[in-house]
Amino acid sequence: MNRQCVLAARPEGIAQAEHFAIVDSPEPDPGDGEILVRNRFLSVEPAMRGWIADAGNYASQVPLGSVMRALAAGEIVASRHPDFHPGEAVLGWFGWQELAAVEPDAILRKIRETDLPLSLSLGILGINGVTALLALTSIGAPKPGETVVVSTAAGAVGSAVGQIARHLRCRTIGIAGGPAKTAICRDIFGYDEAIDYKAGDLGAALDRACPDGIDVYFDNTGGAILDAAIARLAMRGRVVVCGTAATGQWMPWPQGPRLERHLLVKRARMEGFVIFDHMDRWEESVARLADWVRSGLLVYLEDVLDGIEACPDALAGLYRGDNLGKRVIKL
Amino acid sequence: MNRQCVLAARPEGIAQAEHFAIVDSPEPDPGDGEILVRNRFLSVEPAMRGWIADAGNYASQVPLGSVMRALAAGEIVASRHPDFHPGEAVLGWFGWQELAAVEPDAILRKIRETDLPLSLSLGILGINGVTALLALTSIGAPKPGETVVVSTAAGAVGSAVGQIARHLRCRTIGIAGGPAKTAICRDIFGYDEAIDYKAGDLGAALDRACPDGIDVYFDNTGGAILDAAIARLAMRGRVVVCGTAATGQWMPWPQGPRLERHLLVKRARMEGFVIFDHMDRWEESVARLADWVRSGLLVYLEDVLDGIEACPDALAGLYRGDNLGKRVIKL
Repeated sequence: MNRQCVLAARPEGIAQAEHFAIVDSPEPDPGDGEILVRNRFLSVEPAMRGWIADAGNYASQVPLGSVMRALAAGEIVASRHPDFHPGEAVLGWFGWQELAAVEPDAILRKIRETDLPLSLSLGILGINGVTALLALTSIGAPKPGETVVVSTAAGAVGSAVGQIARHLRCRTIGIAGGPAKTAICRDIFGYDEAIDYKAGDLGAALDRACPDGIDVYFDNTGGAILDAAIARLAMRGRVVVCGTAATGQWMPWPQGPRLERHLLVKRARMEGFVIFDHMDRWEESVARLADWVRSGLLVYLEDVLDGIEACPDALAGLYRGDNLGKRVIKL
Repeated sequence: MNRQCVLAARPEGIAQAEHFAIVDSPEPDPGDGEILVRNRFLSVEPAMRGWIADAGNYASQVPLGSVMRALAAGEIVASRHPDFHPGEAVLGWFGWQELAAVEPDAILRKIRETDLPLSLSLGILGINGVTALLALTSIGAPKPGETVVVSTAAGAVGSAVGQIARHLRCRTIGIAGGPAKTAICRDIFGYDEAIDYKAGDLGAALDRACPDGIDVYFDNTGGAILDAAIARLAMRGRVVVCGTAATGQWMPWPQGPRLERHLLVKRARMEGFVIFDHMDRWEESVARLADWVRSGLLVYLEDVLDGIEACPDALAGLYRGDNLGKRVIKL
């Protein structure tokens, strides 16, 4: 049998456990040209909220009753395609299920870093690390000596952004929720300073941490944290819009302070980044990140849940902030 | 005597006639290294509001009691500087007054386009034309076939943006207030379509005019017009933030729909532009614009007020929308 986690109901806000169901289905049989993959690790992404949502998003909506769309890392157990062979490790769109029979275009890559844990292909050597590297360098374009501020700074993307910015000889300031996460920012991820946004006046804390303003703000939250950062941009500051985790509902549009005057006065730039536009740079990025991981320059935290039964609550838990580090589900 | 228009009181919102005063002062005597200029045309800019305002801006505040800061075009009548000579036409920061004794760094350039009207150095061959050309091409970067939408489309900057975008083989849509201005957009400035934002549902009109979305939105207004355009950006759209004329007060920050989710989903870019950062490209830009003017590819409208007495109400009138085209004051 193939155990699967399907989308059972469409939520208004963030999908909770009751919006999913675990079902048993027959073991899939790969058709002509298809590949059968046994998933070893399933990914849990903040972006899944958007893939499920009713509102417009950058990805098509996950249909009701279908297996939840997800990246997964696994190994090929059977192949009816000449380019893929049993035993190869692969990363791809295999969904929240144990087995997936897929067309080759569902496979993003063969995993070559066999000296490193397989799960890293879902995090620091996958969507999180590649997003951090490409969004920071292409939109943020930080120069040595500049001040880089990161939100969800202890998270899967944020922690990589902070470390990469430090390697680029920037001063790095992490924003995270609670003393445990800010301690991790300083002690594990090496931020120069870490700010607990739940501890009080974020604006005043940013003023103290960034006396010359913020040159690059890497935003994974939007909302009030973005507003505080925008107000403190340095001249020609850049805002990387990578996620909007702080906003629970997009329809109708939530209100906030108007940004246009700040962008004008500061000659600042604000730009959205979606990793799936940059797949042509995936391999070179993973190679670079893997070298940093091997040499200890890039560290990571993982939050590993156990078994397909962990799927239904996994996304809600991410938004509750239950996890420290990249959340994956081990099968 | 030298008649001057000074800032007499600091306004809350837009400076009205009563915030200025006309005073007579003695004819200035150029000191060592100074140049005496007789102003022929004084400029009236929307940006003057920011130079006067209490709130933070990109320029230092005009002090109470001092001559209103302004660009002007005039001719040198006396010089105690070896690089400048009587009879030369110059553009510079000469203020709202008849005569100015200035240091050489107040002079932006010698006006070489003596075959064209002197007043153009304050508009299409000055701050407005150069802003339009550089902001559109550097931030907007429109490609042939793309859809470019411009607000204050019949204005001094907007009308140049629309025409330059058309020369770059874009489809151009102008947004302006009232049927007279939209007619000018179509008939004089050659926009493919013009939308009267006062006529009703701007969003629906943009939907009709831009079925494939907006590739470049050149914004001179901010506010509700910006919101309508942002919601209709095409994938990888660009927003040039050049002015915020629609917002009367910046302190406290006015509220509006949050933009970050749209920028993310559309992978869109939004960036502020202030012409004074780009003075190194002024001469090449004016040369290009002057060629287009001479060949009839770039047309312009001027709104010429008469005499220094016109100064006090000139800025308020600009915000009332009294003018068609670049407002200048002829002395």
